Amino acid sequence: MIAVLKPGTTDAQIENLSSWIKLQGLDVHLSRGSLHTVIGLVGDTSKIDADLLESLEIVESVKRISEPFKSANRKFHPDDSVISVGNTSVGGNIFAVMAGPCSVESEAQVMEIAHAVKAAGATMLRGGAFKPRTSPYDFQGLKADGIEILIEAKKETGLPIVTEIMNANHLPLFEEVDVIQVGARNMQNFELLKELGRTQKPILLKRGLANTLKELLMSAEYIMAGGNENVILCERGIRTFETYTRNTLDLSAVPLLHELSHLPVIIDPSHATGVARLVKPMALAAVACGANGLMIEVHNDPAHALCDGAQSLTPETFADVMASVRQVRSALGGN
Amino acid sequence: MIAVLKPGTTDAQIENLSSWIKLQGLDVHLSRGSLHTVIGLVGDTSKIDADLLESLEIVESVKRISEPFKSANRKFHPDDSVISVGNTSVGGNIFAVMAGPCSVESEAQVMEIAHAVKAAGATMLRGGAFKPRTSPYDFQGLKADGIEILIEAKKETGLPIVTEIMNANHLPLFEEVDVIQVGARNMQNFELLKELGRTQKPILLKRGLANTLKELLMSAEYIMAGGNENVILCERGIRTFETYTRNTLDLSAVPLLHELSHLPVIIDPSHATGVARLVKPMALAAVACGANGLMIEVHNDPAHALCDGAQSLTPETFADVMASVRQVRSALGGN
Amino acid sequence: MIAVLKPGTTDAQIENLSSWIKLQGLDVHLSRGSLHTVIGLVGDTSKIDADLLESLEIVESVKRISEPFKSANRKFHPDDSVISVGNTSVGGNIFAVMAGPCSVESEAQVMEIAHAVKAAGATMLRGGAFKPRTSPYDFQGLKADGIEILIEAKKETGLPIVTEIMNANHLPLFEEVDVIQVGARNMQNFELLKELGRTQKPILLKRGLANTLKELLMSAEYIMAGGNENVILCERGIRTFETYTRNTLDLSAVPLLHELSHLPVIIDPSHATGVARLVKPMALAAVACGANGLMIEVHNDPAHALCDGAQSLTPETFADVMASVRQVRSALGGN
Amino acid sequence: MIAVLKPGTTDAQIENLSSWIKLQGLDVHLSRGSLHTVIGLVGDTSKIDADLLESLEIVESVKRISEPFKSANRKFHPDDSVISVGNTSVGGNIFAVMAGPCSVESEAQVMEIAHAVKAAGATMLRGGAFKPRTSPYDFQGLKADGIEILIEAKKETGLPIVTEIMNANHLPLFEEVDVIQVGARNMQNFELLKELGRTQKPILLKRGLANTLKELLMSAEYIMAGGNENVILCERGIRTFETYTRNTLDLSAVPLLHELSHLPVIIDPSHATGVARLVKPMALAAVACGANGLMIEVHNDPAHALCDGAQSLTPETFADVMASVRQVRSALGGN
Repeated sequence: MIAVLKPGTTDAQIENLSSWIKLQGLDVHLSRGSLHTVIGLVGDTSKIDADLLESLEIVESVKRISEPFKSANRKFHPDDSVISVGNTSVGGNIFAVMAGPCSVESEAQVMEIAHAVKAAGATMLRGGAFKPRTSPYDFQGLKADGIEILIEAKKETGLPIVTEIMNANHLPLFEEVDVIQVGARNMQNFELLKELGRTQKPILLKRGLANTLKELLMSAEYIMAGGNENVILCERGIRTFETYTRNTLDLSAVPLLHELSHLPVIIDPSHATGVARLVKPMALAAVACGANGLMIEVHNDPAHALCDGAQSLTPETFADVMASVRQVRSALGGN
Repeated sequence: MIAVLKPGTTDAQIENLSSWIKLQGLDVHLSRGSLHTVIGLVGDTSKIDADLLESLEIVESVKRISEPFKSANRKFHPDDSVISVGNTSVGGNIFAVMAGPCSVESEAQVMEIAHAVKAAGATMLRGGAFKPRTSPYDFQGLKADGIEILIEAKKETGLPIVTEIMNANHLPLFEEVDVIQVGARNMQNFELLKELGRTQKPILLKRGLANTLKELLMSAEYIMAGGNENVILCERGIRTFETYTRNTLDLSAVPLLHELSHLPVIIDPSHATGVARLVKPMALAAVACGANGLMIEVHNDPAHALCDGAQSLTPETFADVMASVRQVRSALGGN
Repeated sequence: MIAVLKPGTTDAQIENLSSWIKLQGLDVHLSRGSLHTVIGLVGDTSKIDADLLESLEIVESVKRISEPFKSANRKFHPDDSVISVGNTSVGGNIFAVMAGPCSVESEAQVMEIAHAVKAAGATMLRGGAFKPRTSPYDFQGLKADGIEILIEAKKETGLPIVTEIMNANHLPLFEEVDVIQVGARNMQNFELLKELGRTQKPILLKRGLANTLKELLMSAEYIMAGGNENVILCERGIRTFETYTRNTLDLSAVPLLHELSHLPVIIDPSHATGVARLVKPMALAAVACGANGLMIEVHNDPAHALCDGAQSLTPETFADVMASVRQVRSALGGN
Repeated sequence: MIAVLKPGTTDAQIENLSSWIKLQGLDVHLSRGSLHTVIGLVGDTSKIDADLLESLEIVESVKRISEPFKSANRKFHPDDSVISVGNTSVGGNIFAVMAGPCSVESEAQVMEIAHAVKAAGATMLRGGAFKPRTSPYDFQGLKADGIEILIEAKKETGLPIVTEIMNANHLPLFEEVDVIQVGARNMQNFELLKELGRTQKPILLKRGLANTLKELLMSAEYIMAGGNENVILCERGIRTFETYTRNTLDLSAVPLLHELSHLPVIIDPSHATGVARLVKPMALAAVACGANGLMIEVHNDPAHALCDGAQSLTPETFADVMASVRQVRSALGGN
């Protein structure tokens, strides 16, 4: 960590600050320029509060040299993490495809879609039982009944299931859920993250609408610091000024997260764009830049989906996407 | 609500859609242009899911005419809401000033600051007991002990207290808290909002970093739909590309929220800018554009604050800010 | 075009507005709701100023039904445009690859790179002679001499050349340039666009850092309205809150621009990311989602490039990118 | 300037880099940490290309300690600049108010508005003769005739005039113009900035929609480096995700620009919000946070303005704004 001091800082002030830094168990390196003096803090600075340092009257700015995340950091875990999920996994050579309806609506609906996506090559079934909606007047999901339906579909098809949690008090309902999803709006619901860190469930952590990649990794760190290393990262679009798509899919997140972290990275083109006809091109782009998998909304009757119908594929178009996904994977040496 | 149909939509398709709309209890108005036909949905469209409508194959786009928030909407409640808080209130002629430390650190600290901010004109004491921090390794607050200290300070100074909640399970600890704050990261933690809607506590609802004013009002609506109409809105900066400040304070939110809603609007210049020396100019600007109050961080020893020291004022500079606030208020006819 | 009127608008006011609309040669369709009346303007509304309409005291909001761009609009030109450039073209079945140094530095440098990128499969040579730099103290390019060097390289290799214009007064220098580039900072330099509309040169129009896709198409419209239909669109990253990359590459622009317009779309992964090691994954993603080509910076000695060295590939890594590009193209049925 | 080296950099590589830095006339300070080595570049680093340094294989990141702008920097010019404009000035104790129509439409219009805004307290007359419009089909201004009309109004009222330039070739038309405005879309039209740097005209430089404060100051530096120190900065809203206002007015720019630079800072609430009824609250907020002046659109018949009517005040509402502006100025000790 480096602190740039303001012009005019006295030697006595520098001495004081240096003493305080040494008290924190760190070494101090001084570099005096014509206008500014720079103090280097050498050692384990992960416990140093950069905001506090920057607030000191003599400090102009502070720069961290090391990333503040440890468990998620590739520097300390050079190999890719592979997260086991039921009879399959996420990361490594497996290309994970989580497909299914935005909302669980009925057993018939989920069964039909589950069989269809399995036939097309999905490795997991997704479906929303608890639904975060902007308006309190919109459909909020079937809740516990929705999870029961997903479990039935898992029994019938063998597909592991992924569904979103909105409240740590609901955790007992998620015992047979294979992957627990944390939605974008809860990415910094730290109380929820801490509770999930106390389980050993695979967690699909979605990037918040306005969160940086470093913040995403710090939220992964919340889960991992609690002892649960089974975190799957998911990019699902960020909020920008462009209004033509619901969000802007940031695909450079894929190679960047792979560089910064050993955790697998999944792309959700359905929520990122909010437009069904953009799902295929964005899914193929995600494959081409190295994503470890996809999360795709599929509905047997998109026009009547209770939510997010605009972004759902039919089983037929999903099968077409999967065929092209396999072609691109194979061209790039995947399987 | 208006739906623009795609070129080439057939009469039969239009007839089908019209029938469905009428089944929802709405009237239909058709307008045929050279390229596009437009369908107007007339009646109470608050239960219609715009996303669903937009997902239909024949629909090009959908536009809501009425805002989807009802309880927070000024159209149905033309008078300003005034929220009673202990011996004072927020909204109307009272200019609310919530001041105090970012984090509660000790009883001595809080007492000293509470007396100082009261003397300078604060109407409430703020302080963080549960702290949302980006990193799991940063100080997370004194929690229940912190709330105890705030209650002590309230007894001694008479100032009502404001503090943040991060988990609905902690609600029993907040019984003597006067205003419960929902932080920016939890603005769309709908489970928390619903629980707060079941209380009658005044709620200070902070705008999320990437949330629109309409989303802020929809989150207020979550609380109000549960029966708790005591919502105070708070703008605390949004995330933009500018890196010089921590966030970009969106002061146009003040007159806009006053136009859209009857709820009081508070500005937090400390978090918005992240820089203590910007608090005064931004506080005065907030007063000048009609804010109902301010939330300001004050620390007796900013250089050693456990968090957010960079944005805290000393009691002396806070008193100076308050003097100028009174001058601007008085120039504009406030008191 | 639709205008939503405010609650309380009188019949006389509606009559007045309707008369004015009819005077503009348009038909009027009225739709009265419980709270709002909606006026539809039917006919060619491209000359109606939506801002003016929205400024009327009785109007709450205005929505355009038809896009305001005509020449660039796919609705009126369903077939893809193919732009001829020297012995090659952009659009259709040709996959265009414009490669070369950020800045032209010397004849030796450009010759070496030109041969190398041609051997690796580039279809055009790019190089900066006039350089837009944020700082007046940074290297501003070799200017006319730089263009001379590019023309020499074109003669020797047969590769058409692409280079940026910053001032319409420089047009005489661009006579032997095959594609004139308009940089992101000049996307709304309307005076420059108008001048380029008077030529018949192919124009590579880069999207501005904070410009929507509709604004990009309106800028293309400026060139096309002058009579020059040879416009190539280029996405090169937009400005967001994320700081890890220089910009955020918006790949959903590719299928969206193809849907809205018949013009070819090129991706510049070098400027979008600002990081050489992200160029390959983003180039492959661009191919996978249907881009008509790529613009890539290649330097024979990236460590000593006079500008933007951080984002340049070596000829060897460029050849590796091209090999993978061909694999993905071939997997998806391209050639 | 500081360069953080990657883990694993060898002593020989560090020695090589150090030699190169010394060749540039700078001193080198080395600081070795457990993981990273940090190199400090000491001396005048304004000519060092940070991008080039960051592109080196052994460099992880680079941080500038000194701002790259010199002429605009308050560190080297501690006193506020006061720019003389005809019989008045901008900066210092004068509060500048530039008011007038968005577009010059006719002599009668401009004369009527000029007299009205002068009576209400404006210090300058603004009006658009060359108009940057997103669409080539929208009204582009009266051009030279518009400037003639402004000059007539100046003769009659004595008010100095402000109008926008879009093309350096038009400079001869601006001889009797007192302040030349560079619009937001041209903030990084460096060719135009260089030409304006060769004049001695006061330049009103508007911040681009997606430009940081540092980029605004670098654009000021382009003008100042040419010898013209008469630059007035103008904040007019930045582009964010919020759609309720046309742009988001960033008022923290006022105290920040005052801290970074000695140049005067003007606020344009009309363009920032795009909504006439927000002009007053935002104008008062600008005064309260220390702006040196305002630019406000005033129209005698806003409903029929040829452009931007949505954001124009009537002369009556402008007079009301001015009265409140004076009250806030006076409360804060201005005059």
